[in-house]
Amino acid sequence: MSRFRIRDFELAGRIGVLRTRSGSLETPAFFPVVDPARQEITIDDIKEVGFKQIITNAYLLYKRALKSGDGSVPGKLDVHRFLGFDGIIMTDSGAYQLLEYGNIDVDQNTIINFEKAIGSDVAVILDHPTGDVSRREAEASVVETLRNAQEALKIIDVNDDTIWVLPIQGGKYLDLVRRSALESSKLAYPMYSIGSPTAFMEVYRYDIVLKMIGTAKEVLPPERPVHLFGAGHPLIFPFAVALGVDTFDSASYILYARDDRYMTDYGTVKLQDLQYFPCSCPVCRKYTPRDLMEMPPEQRRRLLAIHNLYVIKRSLERVKQAIAEGRLWELVVEVSRYRAETARALRAISRYYKLMDSFTPSSKGGLRGVRLVSIESTWNPRVMRYRSWVLTSYEPPKDMINVLTPLPTSRGCQEVSIKGSRHVIYYVPYLGLIPSEACGLYPTAQFTYAEPVDDAVIRDLINVVRTFVARSRERGWPLTAEASRRKRWSMEVGLELSRLGVDTSWLDERVHGTRAD
Amino acid sequence: MSRFRIRDFELAGRIGVLRTRSGSLETPAFFPVVDPARQEITIDDIKEVGFKQIITNAYLLYKRALKSGDGSVPGKLDVHRFLGFDGIIMTDSGAYQLLEYGNIDVDQNTIINFEKAIGSDVAVILDHPTGDVSRREAEASVVETLRNAQEALKIIDVNDDTIWVLPIQGGKYLDLVRRSALESSKLAYPMYSIGSPTAFMEVYRYDIVLKMIGTAKEVLPPERPVHLFGAGHPLIFPFAVALGVDTFDSASYILYARDDRYMTDYGTVKLQDLQYFPCSCPVCRKYTPRDLMEMPPEQRRRLLAIHNLYVIKRSLERVKQAIAEGRLWELVVEVSRYRAETARALRAISRYYKLMDSFTPSSKGGLRGVRLVSIESTWNPRVMRYRSWVLTSYEPPKDMINVLTPLPTSRGCQEVSIKGSRHVIYYVPYLGLIPSEACGLYPTAQFTYAEPVDDAVIRDLINVVRTFVARSRERGWPLTAEASRRKRWSMEVGLELSRLGVDTSWLDERVHGTRAD
Repeated sequence: MSRFRIRDFELAGRIGVLRTRSGSLETPAFFPVVDPARQEITIDDIKEVGFKQIITNAYLLYKRALKSGDGSVPGKLDVHRFLGFDGIIMTDSGAYQLLEYGNIDVDQNTIINFEKAIGSDVAVILDHPTGDVSRREAEASVVETLRNAQEALKIIDVNDDTIWVLPIQGGKYLDLVRRSALESSKLAYPMYSIGSPTAFMEVYRYDIVLKMIGTAKEVLPPERPVHLFGAGHPLIFPFAVALGVDTFDSASYILYARDDRYMTDYGTVKLQDLQYFPCSCPVCRKYTPRDLMEMPPEQRRRLLAIHNLYVIKRSLERVKQAIAEGRLWELVVEVSRYRAETARALRAISRYYKLMDSFTPSSKGGLRGVRLVSIESTWNPRVMRYRSWVLTSYEPPKDMINVLTPLPTSRGCQEVSIKGSRHVIYYVPYLGLIPSEACGLYPTAQFTYAEPVDDAVIRDLINVVRTFVARSRERGWPLTAEASRRKRWSMEVGLELSRLGVDTSWLDERVHGTRAD
Repeated sequence: MSRFRIRDFELAGRIGVLRTRSGSLETPAFFPVVDPARQEITIDDIKEVGFKQIITNAYLLYKRALKSGDGSVPGKLDVHRFLGFDGIIMTDSGAYQLLEYGNIDVDQNTIINFEKAIGSDVAVILDHPTGDVSRREAEASVVETLRNAQEALKIIDVNDDTIWVLPIQGGKYLDLVRRSALESSKLAYPMYSIGSPTAFMEVYRYDIVLKMIGTAKEVLPPERPVHLFGAGHPLIFPFAVALGVDTFDSASYILYARDDRYMTDYGTVKLQDLQYFPCSCPVCRKYTPRDLMEMPPEQRRRLLAIHNLYVIKRSLERVKQAIAEGRLWELVVEVSRYRAETARALRAISRYYKLMDSFTPSSKGGLRGVRLVSIESTWNPRVMRYRSWVLTSYEPPKDMINVLTPLPTSRGCQEVSIKGSRHVIYYVPYLGLIPSEACGLYPTAQFTYAEPVDDAVIRDLINVVRTFVARSRERGWPLTAEASRRKRWSMEVGLELSRLGVDTSWLDERVHGTRAD
């Protein structure tokens, strides 16, 4: 009776449906943090943006209930009624307070029973978050969280209609993360989470958070959903989803708003630095940056928080669309260019190539031509697979002379006919080699890249050609080549082929005019 | 009595205010094309998106008026009343029909008098658009347009309250564009436009259109506004604005809608390929892609057209914000990564460096640290100027030993003190050299780049260092150096310095742990 169904994969990311007592949630999804004490933005505001799910803090609710005497009476405090929200409510356990203040005055049994009593849909056990601490302390947090996880199993039923979440600890110590995930995967929790990335998120070390995720996902059971705590920067979404994160939560939208920070699709800007709103959300349609600056702070915070939630929402929609289209790698490459921290993020997820490759389906509806923009585009599993097939498994037809020649277009090839004794194998940046009979398939049929091509991509192409020449000689395949001076990549390949002693003829140069094209 | 006031510059782009009879327009601005005959989207829809300006076709209006007998009576047909729009109305002259059908059955005087009579705010004379034609035909279109422009001056008053627009012709023949612009700049028109890019826009040859703009802008009077016809792809906006285009018009929003094409901030997608809307506009908030697919075509077209207009609007807001922040170059580099055609667009505008450099103010309010992402980031005039100052004008303090050392941070330097006889000159990717006393200024004080750095950027840094070493020897400046093995760029610079015979010591390597950071 799985409450998580995966509908589509791309890299290690997925589009799934999480069934909870209060309705189904399509993932990847974001849970806005609602602080029961500070309502700068109302539940209705959050619903209006389009969120059917929120997260709140069971510990803070408990303290509050204790004061009013409701905490000891199960069922007296219903979290849906209390917050006036009939959607999906996730409750964190108080672990964040444990991280901030070192200790909380309540034990796990109390908190778990309280989460049950108030009707939480997705409930986190009382973990011991790691934070950015010494190795010894990190190890202790792993051990204590696992101990709590085992203890909790005595008082919860993992098959009841609450989705219980077990956090993975270990922080930046990846061997500890691995151990935590390995041990956790033996426990029958229906959902996991990656614990305490907040310390690293705050200093924009997405790369560390992503390594924590990648390490955990390498050993966690892939069919169970994984939550990432405290990740509310939209720029980390495509990377975290690529490694297999299904849900996120954060208070960033309101914390940023308190600090007059305005989220955009490509980073965060101080409101005072804005003269224009590059956004079509209801807030940005109605007001100018100056209007907001001149408002009373409470009003400005609410509006900025609403805007920030719209950015978060549409960022995840973009990630979901990229999964549907088979373009998630293209999206991470694009986002990697926005900021130094996202450039590092791309390198970080690249370490988990095997993880990402293993879940990428080789075909799906809506798969279109791949867009190739820089050397990082070749790390796309969809490209890597093709390339490695050509270089390791492909055999040209026998008794023909293979002619290596530059592909004349940067938009894919369609031909399939082989004529005479001349067998054409195209060389082309990014994809490497395309035997003419492999034209018309994915990804050879349709792709686009821009001229001029980066040096790194040219060097890569030269290496591919060199490998093929070596293989041809080993296998005794006859080989000649052609090159063109018109494109630098072809010229450099031609020079290399000549250097390797392959008979290479130079194609005619087209006479250039003085026209703009 | 100029009707165009420029409020801010960045590259050759500007934020301006165009005063018309029907109100002021902040530029860069976009005029949605309204076809008087086909109203798939209403004027109120266009207003609701936030457009205070539209463009329509005087020739088509004239034909219509002729039929109803209103055309011959000046003032009988008022274009504002006819379209039900009290904002700014620009009228094209029928040139597009001339381009499409080779000829139109009306002479320039008739059209100009008609444009006057109907109360057009911004009116185009009857030009002869070039299109993608032979050189001979292109030359004819230049000559005929100039002849019309001179003729028109006899019947219009360029100082009256209509803003008369003179189109520049020549198409892809840049010498003809230059001639057209040169001759046109001698005529006292208050506004120019770049004629007939449609043929190139349709095949996404933004680079050709941009070369036409750059060539024209090099000779057009900079204080007069320039319109670009038929450019409704948001991805060309930052590039065209960077070269000095102030206003745009297009029917793309509705043409795309008819073809079920959905604009995004990073390109256009077929509606059927979308499962999610990565947008917060009123259409995308209310409907899903499937909802739209299941609607009757007219309703779907209207909604898609509205959405497309929101994308166009916010794309221009983003460009304006980039001008305000001094980040327009950063924006073009970012957008250049989205598509092959925008990569070519970046190369195309780079040819007009002098034009872009000459209008970029060295300081402005809101100027923050520059973000450096690839070798193209160094083509930013704000970076180039700094680099060329260090390499050609800078002199280190006398009687001190200059120590070239890697800048230990990728986020700018603040120090200004010089101690002892050791004078530190930092080397760093992208910016090149930073003498310690130049720390704390723009752009040295704040900048960000990501590790690892591209090969092209490393090669560039090596060239900068090599140039400085040569200059030091010529001038007799004492020089030693330091390098670090921890960063590849520093290691490669260190090796080059050793090769050049500069005394280079290697900084200690930090011991690495197994942690994620």
